[in-house]
Amino acid sequence: MKTKIGIIICGLENNRQYVTDTYIQAVKSAGALPIVLPMVKSKSAISEYVELCDGFLFCGGGDITPLLFGQEPTNGIGKTDITMDLFQIRLMKQVLEYEKPVLAICRGMQILNVACGGTVYQDLNEVNFDTINHMQTSLSRKDVSHKVTFSTKSRIHGMLGPFAYTNSFHHQAIDRIGKNLVVTGTTGDDVIEAIEMPSHSFVLGVQWHPESMLDSASNMKQLFFALVRYAKV
Amino acid sequence: MKTKIGIIICGLENNRQYVTDTYIQAVKSAGALPIVLPMVKSKSAISEYVELCDGFLFCGGGDITPLLFGQEPTNGIGKTDITMDLFQIRLMKQVLEYEKPVLAICRGMQILNVACGGTVYQDLNEVNFDTINHMQTSLSRKDVSHKVTFSTKSRIHGMLGPFAYTNSFHHQAIDRIGKNLVVTGTTGDDVIEAIEMPSHSFVLGVQWHPESMLDSASNMKQLFFALVRYAKV
Amino acid sequence: MKTKIGIIICGLENNRQYVTDTYIQAVKSAGALPIVLPMVKSKSAISEYVELCDGFLFCGGGDITPLLFGQEPTNGIGKTDITMDLFQIRLMKQVLEYEKPVLAICRGMQILNVACGGTVYQDLNEVNFDTINHMQTSLSRKDVSHKVTFSTKSRIHGMLGPFAYTNSFHHQAIDRIGKNLVVTGTTGDDVIEAIEMPSHSFVLGVQWHPESMLDSASNMKQLFFALVRYAKV
Amino acid sequence: MKTKIGIIICGLENNRQYVTDTYIQAVKSAGALPIVLPMVKSKSAISEYVELCDGFLFCGGGDITPLLFGQEPTNGIGKTDITMDLFQIRLMKQVLEYEKPVLAICRGMQILNVACGGTVYQDLNEVNFDTINHMQTSLSRKDVSHKVTFSTKSRIHGMLGPFAYTNSFHHQAIDRIGKNLVVTGTTGDDVIEAIEMPSHSFVLGVQWHPESMLDSASNMKQLFFALVRYAKV
Amino acid sequence: MKTKIGIIICGLENNRQYVTDTYIQAVKSAGALPIVLPMVKSKSAISEYVELCDGFLFCGGGDITPLLFGQEPTNGIGKTDITMDLFQIRLMKQVLEYEKPVLAICRGMQILNVACGGTVYQDLNEVNFDTINHMQTSLSRKDVSHKVTFSTKSRIHGMLGPFAYTNSFHHQAIDRIGKNLVVTGTTGDDVIEAIEMPSHSFVLGVQWHPESMLDSASNMKQLFFALVRYAKV
Amino acid sequence: MKTKIGIIICGLENNRQYVTDTYIQAVKSAGALPIVLPMVKSKSAISEYVELCDGFLFCGGGDITPLLFGQEPTNGIGKTDITMDLFQIRLMKQVLEYEKPVLAICRGMQILNVACGGTVYQDLNEVNFDTINHMQTSLSRKDVSHKVTFSTKSRIHGMLGPFAYTNSFHHQAIDRIGKNLVVTGTTGDDVIEAIEMPSHSFVLGVQWHPESMLDSASNMKQLFFALVRYAKV
Amino acid sequence: MKTKIGIIICGLENNRQYVTDTYIQAVKSAGALPIVLPMVKSKSAISEYVELCDGFLFCGGGDITPLLFGQEPTNGIGKTDITMDLFQIRLMKQVLEYEKPVLAICRGMQILNVACGGTVYQDLNEVNFDTINHMQTSLSRKDVSHKVTFSTKSRIHGMLGPFAYTNSFHHQAIDRIGKNLVVTGTTGDDVIEAIEMPSHSFVLGVQWHPESMLDSASNMKQLFFALVRYAKV
Amino acid sequence: MKTKIGIIICGLENNRQYVTDTYIQAVKSAGALPIVLPMVKSKSAISEYVELCDGFLFCGGGDITPLLFGQEPTNGIGKTDITMDLFQIRLMKQVLEYEKPVLAICRGMQILNVACGGTVYQDLNEVNFDTINHMQTSLSRKDVSHKVTFSTKSRIHGMLGPFAYTNSFHHQAIDRIGKNLVVTGTTGDDVIEAIEMPSHSFVLGVQWHPESMLDSASNMKQLFFALVRYAKV
Repeated sequence: MKTKIGIIICGLENNRQYVTDTYIQAVKSAGALPIVLPMVKSKSAISEYVELCDGFLFCGGGDITPLLFGQEPTNGIGKTDITMDLFQIRLMKQVLEYEKPVLAICRGMQILNVACGGTVYQDLNEVNFDTINHMQTSLSRKDVSHKVTFSTKSRIHGMLGPFAYTNSFHHQAIDRIGKNLVVTGTTGDDVIEAIEMPSHSFVLGVQWHPESMLDSASNMKQLFFALVRYAKV
Repeated sequence: MKTKIGIIICGLENNRQYVTDTYIQAVKSAGALPIVLPMVKSKSAISEYVELCDGFLFCGGGDITPLLFGQEPTNGIGKTDITMDLFQIRLMKQVLEYEKPVLAICRGMQILNVACGGTVYQDLNEVNFDTINHMQTSLSRKDVSHKVTFSTKSRIHGMLGPFAYTNSFHHQAIDRIGKNLVVTGTTGDDVIEAIEMPSHSFVLGVQWHPESMLDSASNMKQLFFALVRYAKV
Repeated sequence: MKTKIGIIICGLENNRQYVTDTYIQAVKSAGALPIVLPMVKSKSAISEYVELCDGFLFCGGGDITPLLFGQEPTNGIGKTDITMDLFQIRLMKQVLEYEKPVLAICRGMQILNVACGGTVYQDLNEVNFDTINHMQTSLSRKDVSHKVTFSTKSRIHGMLGPFAYTNSFHHQAIDRIGKNLVVTGTTGDDVIEAIEMPSHSFVLGVQWHPESMLDSASNMKQLFFALVRYAKV
Repeated sequence: MKTKIGIIICGLENNRQYVTDTYIQAVKSAGALPIVLPMVKSKSAISEYVELCDGFLFCGGGDITPLLFGQEPTNGIGKTDITMDLFQIRLMKQVLEYEKPVLAICRGMQILNVACGGTVYQDLNEVNFDTINHMQTSLSRKDVSHKVTFSTKSRIHGMLGPFAYTNSFHHQAIDRIGKNLVVTGTTGDDVIEAIEMPSHSFVLGVQWHPESMLDSASNMKQLFFALVRYAKV
Repeated sequence: MKTKIGIIICGLENNRQYVTDTYIQAVKSAGALPIVLPMVKSKSAISEYVELCDGFLFCGGGDITPLLFGQEPTNGIGKTDITMDLFQIRLMKQVLEYEKPVLAICRGMQILNVACGGTVYQDLNEVNFDTINHMQTSLSRKDVSHKVTFSTKSRIHGMLGPFAYTNSFHHQAIDRIGKNLVVTGTTGDDVIEAIEMPSHSFVLGVQWHPESMLDSASNMKQLFFALVRYAKV
Repeated sequence: MKTKIGIIICGLENNRQYVTDTYIQAVKSAGALPIVLPMVKSKSAISEYVELCDGFLFCGGGDITPLLFGQEPTNGIGKTDITMDLFQIRLMKQVLEYEKPVLAICRGMQILNVACGGTVYQDLNEVNFDTINHMQTSLSRKDVSHKVTFSTKSRIHGMLGPFAYTNSFHHQAIDRIGKNLVVTGTTGDDVIEAIEMPSHSFVLGVQWHPESMLDSASNMKQLFFALVRYAKV
Repeated sequence: MKTKIGIIICGLENNRQYVTDTYIQAVKSAGALPIVLPMVKSKSAISEYVELCDGFLFCGGGDITPLLFGQEPTNGIGKTDITMDLFQIRLMKQVLEYEKPVLAICRGMQILNVACGGTVYQDLNEVNFDTINHMQTSLSRKDVSHKVTFSTKSRIHGMLGPFAYTNSFHHQAIDRIGKNLVVTGTTGDDVIEAIEMPSHSFVLGVQWHPESMLDSASNMKQLFFALVRYAKV
Repeated sequence: MKTKIGIIICGLENNRQYVTDTYIQAVKSAGALPIVLPMVKSKSAISEYVELCDGFLFCGGGDITPLLFGQEPTNGIGKTDITMDLFQIRLMKQVLEYEKPVLAICRGMQILNVACGGTVYQDLNEVNFDTINHMQTSLSRKDVSHKVTFSTKSRIHGMLGPFAYTNSFHHQAIDRIGKNLVVTGTTGDDVIEAIEMPSHSFVLGVQWHPESMLDSASNMKQLFFALVRYAKV
C-alpha cells in the first residue's frame, strides 16, 4: 500500500468541509495516497487519525483565534473559527508527539507555531516595522511576488538552494517562534517565511503556497516529495 | 480502532473538494471514524481506498453525465462533472465487488444504480407521468415534504416501518433499475425512493436526506447505525 | 386599558421574527394596543396568548406546508416553514374555540381556512380554470388591481358595500372551504377573496391587503375598526 | 399565568419590525412568556406596555442618534433611527420609574445608559486610548473573543464569578456612565462591559451577547433566569 | 422665442422622475426648446402645462394599468404605476381637446390609444396569433430588428415612404384602436406600429423608438421636425 | 396662471435626466407650477429658460468639477459631470443677472457659490480643521442630525429663527465665499450651511435638505413659500 | 516567416473587442503565427486583412441578426450585434472569393453558412422536431456531451474517423444549408454539426468547440493542424 | 497597402484577450490598418510581429509586476499579470531595437519606461510628496481633469502646444526615468505625464488617454496621425 498522507481539512464554509484541490493533487503527484481528515469533536478520532496516516499536510485557511495564543483580537484580525482551530492544534500536537512527518503551509505553518507555544502577528498592517506587500494581487496564483532567503544548513536550503522567488498570500505572520522550532527562511523585511523543527525527522512550515507553483516552478515539488519520502520510512 | 467509514467526496466547486458537514457528523454520531476520500485519477488509489475502509457513504451532489448511462443530454439536465462521475462510479463498482457495506444517499443512490447498469430520469419535469414536487422549498432542510412507502421484508422497512414522512431535494430519479438491485421504497407517484441489493449484506440507497433529519426524526439515525454495524463485522 | 390586539408574528427570516410595520400601525390607528405574539414551541404559551389578548390579527406571509391540509407538494409551491405553520394553526384553532374576534389577511385567511379543515390551491398557475393575475406588479402596494364582489348580507358587504377595487398579492387561493366558514367575496374568475364564520361574532378573512390601502382607500379602515370594536365587547 | 417578559422590538428594516429569534427562545427557555412590544408613537401605549409586563428585555440593534445624548455625529457613527431611539428611551425611563426588572443587552445597555443621562463613544476607532477589537469576525456568534472582569459584590459577579470569556459585537461603548448606574464589568482596555443600578431590584446591562452563547456556555443562562426570577416577584 | 415642446415625464423610479436623455436631445436637435413636464396631482397644473407648450412628446415607459382600459390584469403584465398613468392620460386628453400637435412613442402611443378609448394587448406572448419578437436583444438600441409597412396617404408614409426597418422594444401592443384614430403602420404579423388622428393637424403615434435611430437612420429625424413644424404654426 | 418655478435637472445617470420627486412636490405644495428644465448645450435655450420661469430651484446632486473653480482634483473628490456643471453654472449666472429669485439646495448652493467666483472644499475629510459628520446615516432622510445657527437679520433667521436642527447629506462644503454672497448659517464646526445675496430680492442657499423634512418639521416649508412669494412679484 | 492565421475578433462587450484565449493558443500550438483581426467599418481594411493572412479562423460568439438571412426575430433569439455580423459576413465572403483556407467554429460555422446564403434556426427550442440538449452544463468545457457522426469521404471523417464525442454549447443551428456547402456531420437528432465546401481546398465548419478539448481529446488538434497546413501552401 | 499599426493586446480577463475598441477606432481614423497582436509565449512570434507591422501602439491596462523593475510589492499595488508583462516588455524592447515608431499610452508608457530600465511608483498614495488626484471620477472618460505642461522643443509640444487639459486614469506613475528617455510633460505636482526618446524617429509615451478625447478635443488626434506618419516612412 502506498504511503498514506493525511490532509487536514482546510475549513468549513456554508456547512461544507473542504480542501482545496491543489493540495490533494500535489500529494497524489508525489506518489502518496491522499486521505482527507475531517473536523470532528472527538479526542479518540484525533488519536486514530494520527495512527492511521504516515505523514501529514496542514494547509492554508483563515486566521487563528487570538485567545489561543494568549492575545485579545486587534482590528486587523480576519475570519476565525475556534472549533476548527482547536481541532487542528490538538491534531498537530499529537502528530508532533508521535514524531510523524509534517508539511505545514501558510495557516498550517502558523498552526504549527501556535501548537508549539508561539504567537502570530494578527495583521501585518499593524506591526511597528515596514513590510512589503505579502498579499499578492496577480492574475494567477502561480505568479511570483517576492524573494525568500534560506538559512544555510536548513532542510529547505537543501531542497531549494540559498533563495527562491515565491508567491505570497497572507496578512498574518509568525511573531514569537514556538518551542523547538527554528526560523529557516525570511523575506527582506524579516518576515518569517519558513520554519523547521530540527529535533524531528521532517517538520517543515512554509508561509507561501508551493502547491500552486508546481507547473511553473518545478523545484517546489521537492517539498511534497520530501514529505512522502520521510513518511515512507 | 473504530470502524472506518469512507465518505466519498461530494463535489468540486471553486477548486475545492468538499463534503457537507452533516454527513461527517452523522457518521461520527453513529460511533465510527469518518474518513473523507478525495477524488484523484488513479486506479490504484481507488483500490486502496476500498481496502482501507470498512464501509462507505456516498452522498448527495450534482447530476450524472447522461453519456455514462447511455443517453444524450435533454433540456432538464443540471450541472455535471464527468471526472467526478467516473471516480465515484469506479469506486462504487469496486466496493460492490468487495462486498463492503454501502449507504448511498440521493445522488449517491443514483451512482449506485448507474454503477449497476441502471438509468436515471434526467429531469422529473420531462417524464410522461404526473409527479409531485420532489424539490422542496421549506425554510429548513429537516422539514418533511412527502410520504414514502416501503416494501414489506425490505431492510428499510425493518428500520423505519411501513412508511415514513421524508424531506425531498432532487429533480432526477431512478428510471430503469440496475442489475441485482430491487426497489424497496416509493412515493405515491411511483418515484423510486429506496433501493437495496439483497445479495449483499448491506447495500442501501435512499433518495431523501436522512442526515438532515436526525434532530427532528430520530429514527433516521437507524440508517447510519446500520451502516456502521454491518461495516464492523 | 386599551383593547389588546395580538398580532401573530408574520415569519422568520435570517434568524429574525418579524411583523410588517403596516399591520402594527393599522392596529394602533384603529385605537387598540398592538402586541406582537412571537412563535414559540409551547402549548401553554399558546393558551396564554389567547387569554391575554382581546382580538387577533393574522397577517400575510409565505405558503402553507401542503401536508398540513392533506396534500403532497406540487411544482408551484413557494417557501414554507412547517414550524411556523403549526404554531399559527394551533393558535388559530384556540382563538376560534374561545370565540375571540379575528381578522385574517392573505396567508392569514388561508391559515383560518386550513385550521377549519379547508384546503388551498398550491399555485393559481396550476388550476384547471382561467384566472386573472393575482400577483400585481405595480409601483406601489396601494395601487388597485382588480374588483371584488361581496355577498349581500355578509359582514364585509356591510363594511365595504357590494364591491371594492382592491390590490392583490398572492399566488395561492382557497380551494375547498373549511367547516363553518362561508365565502363572502370573489373576483370575476371565482377566486375566493373573502370568507367569514357566521357562528362567531367576528371572524373575517380577506385575500387582499387592506393594511396597505389605508391612505388611498379610507373605507379599508373599517376592517380594523370592526376588529377592535368586537374585541372590546 | 407565566411571568410575562416584554421583549422590546430590535429594529425596523424594509418595513418590518423584528426581534432576533435567539432572544425570544432565551426568554422562553428561562420559563417565561415572551411578548414582543412593537414600536408605536403613543405615550399611552408605552404606559400600557410597562403595566402589562413583569420584566423587560432590551436587545441589540443599531446605533443611537447622538443628538439624544447631547452630541453631534462623528465620522464613525453607524445606522441610526431616531424614532426607534425615542421609543426605546421613553419605554426604558418608564420601566425604571416603575422599578420593574430589566435585562439590557448590547445596544440595550446603551439605551439604559442614555436613558439615565449617560453618553456613548460613537465609535471605538475614534477614542483616544488603545482598544482591542470589539467586533469579532468568527464563524459562529457563540465563539468567545475576549475576557471580561467583574467587580466583586456586583450582581453579575454573583452570577458568573470573577470573570468570563465572552463574544463581542459592538463598535460603540459607554463613555460617561448614567445617573444611578455603576460599572460592574470591563475588558482589559477599560471598555465598559457590564453596568447595574444598585437602587433597583434587577437592572443589568451587558455589552456582549449572552443569548448567543447558551449552547456553549451554560452559565450565560443565569442572566435570563435572574430576569425572570425578579420579574416573578 | 423658440417653439416650446413639452416632454412628458417618462416615469418615477427610486423617488426620481426622469426622462431618457435621447428624447430631450432629439427635440433640441429639431430646433425647439425642450421643457420637461413633471407628474403632479393637480387638474390646474395639467391645464397650465397644455397652455404653456406648443407641442407635446409622450415617450416610452412601463405598462399601463389594465383597469384604465377596462380589463383585469393577466399574467404577462409588467410594472405599472396608476398615478403616472392617470396623469399622462388626463394630460393627453386635454392636449387632444386643445388640438395641439403630439408625437407619441412606444408607451406614449399606447397612452394616446387608451386616452381615445382603445385597448392594448397586455402581453404579446398571450395573444392568440403568431407574432415575431418585438423585444429586440441587440447590442445597440439603434440596430434594426424588423420591417414596418405604412398605409399610402398616411402622414408617416409621407415622411418615411412605403416601409422602414425599425428597432423594436415592446411586449405590449395596441389591440382595439381608439376613437378617431386610424392604423397607418404594421409589421408582417399585423401588430400595429403606427397610428394617426386624421381630424387633427398632427397626432402621430409610433411603436418603435425613432429617437434612438437618429445617428444611423437620418430619415427618423423627420418625425421630430414634423412635430416642431406643426407646433410652430 | 400660477407662478412658474423652473426646477433645474439634478443629474444624468444611465442616460436618464432626473429630478428627485421630493423637490417637485415641494414646489407644487407651495402653490406654484413646477417646470423641469433639462440640460441641453445651447446658449439660447438657457436664455429662454430664464425668461420663461418666475423663480428657480437648484437641487442636490454630484460634485462640481474642480477645474471650474480653479483647482485640480484631490483624492476625496466624488462623481463629477463637467457638462452638467457648465450648464447649471451658466444658467445660475443668467438667473442672477436677471435678478430672478433662487432657492439653492446642497449642490445647488455650491453651484451658486461657484457661479459667483467662490470655491468649495473638495472633501470635508481633507480639510485641516475638525468637523462633525455631515453625511448622516439615519434610517430616514427626515431624521435630524445637527444644529445650524443663523445670523441675526438674515433672511433665513426671519424664516426659521436663531437656529434649527437639520438633516445633513454632503461631503463637500463652501470654502471661499463668492462675490456678493454672505454667510448666514453655520454648524458648530464653522461649516457654512446657509448663504444669501443681500443685493437681490431672494437668493438663498442652504446646505441641508429642507425638501425631505416637510412632514416632520413644518417650518421648512417656509423656504419654498418664500421662493414662490418672491417669484410671484 | 511562419504561416499567418487571421483570427477574426469574437465580439465586442463593454467597449472591448476580444478573442477567447483558447483560440489563440490553439493556432500557436499548431505552429502558425496568430494575428487578431479587429472589427472596423472599412471595405479596404477587409481586403487588406484577407490579403495579409494565409488562413482564417472564425470563432464562437453571439447570435446572428435574423434580417441578415431574411427573417424577422423570433422569441428565442439571443444577443445580436448587426455591425459585427456585417463585418464578419463581408470578411468571410472575401476569404471564400480568394479561396483561402477557413476553419469556422460554432457561430463561425453559422457565419460561413449565412455568407453562402444559408439560414439558421433562431433557437433549437422553437424547432418542430425533437432535439437533444445542445447547451451543455458540465463543470468543464472540455467534458464531452454527445456523439457526432461524419459522412464517409468528408474531410472531417479523414481527420476524426466515422464519429466523435464532442462538447456542445449552442442554442442555434444551421437550417437551410448555404450554396456550395455540404453537410458532413450530424448528431442523432439530425442537427448539423459539420459542414464543408468541396470546391475549395479547405473550408470546414464545426458546431462544437475543438479548441476547448485539446488537452483531453488530442485528435481535435487535427483541425488546427489542417488549417495551418493548407494555409501554408 | 495601408500602413500597418500593431496594437498590442491590452489584457487577459475571464479567458479573453481584449483591446478597448477606442484604440482600434483611433488607429483606423488616423488612416492606418489596425492589427491586433495577441499574447503568446514565443520568441519567434515576437520577432515576426515586429517585422510585420510599421508602427506600434501600446495601450492602457493593469499594473506591472514590481519584480520586473527590481522591487518587491507594496500595499498599493493593483492587479498584475507577469506573463502579459513579460510579453509586452520583450515586444517593446525589440520594437525599440528595430527603431520602429511607438505610441505608448498610460500603462503602455510605463512598459516603455521599464523596458528601458526605469521604475514606476507602485501607488501615488504611497509617495512622499503631495499629489493631485490622478484617478478621475467623472461621468465621461472624455471630461478633462488636470493641466499638463510640455517642455519646449519636445515632440509633444510640437503637437499640442505649451500645455493641455487632459483626462487622467492612473494610480501609478513613472519614478526613475529609463535610459535614453526624457521627460517632456508634467502636471503641477511634478508627476510625469509625457516621455520621449530623442534618439529615435518617434517614440512617445503619454500618461493620459488621448484615444478617449478625440470627440471633444480634436488636437488629440495629432498623436495618432504622427504615429501613422512616421510609420509610413
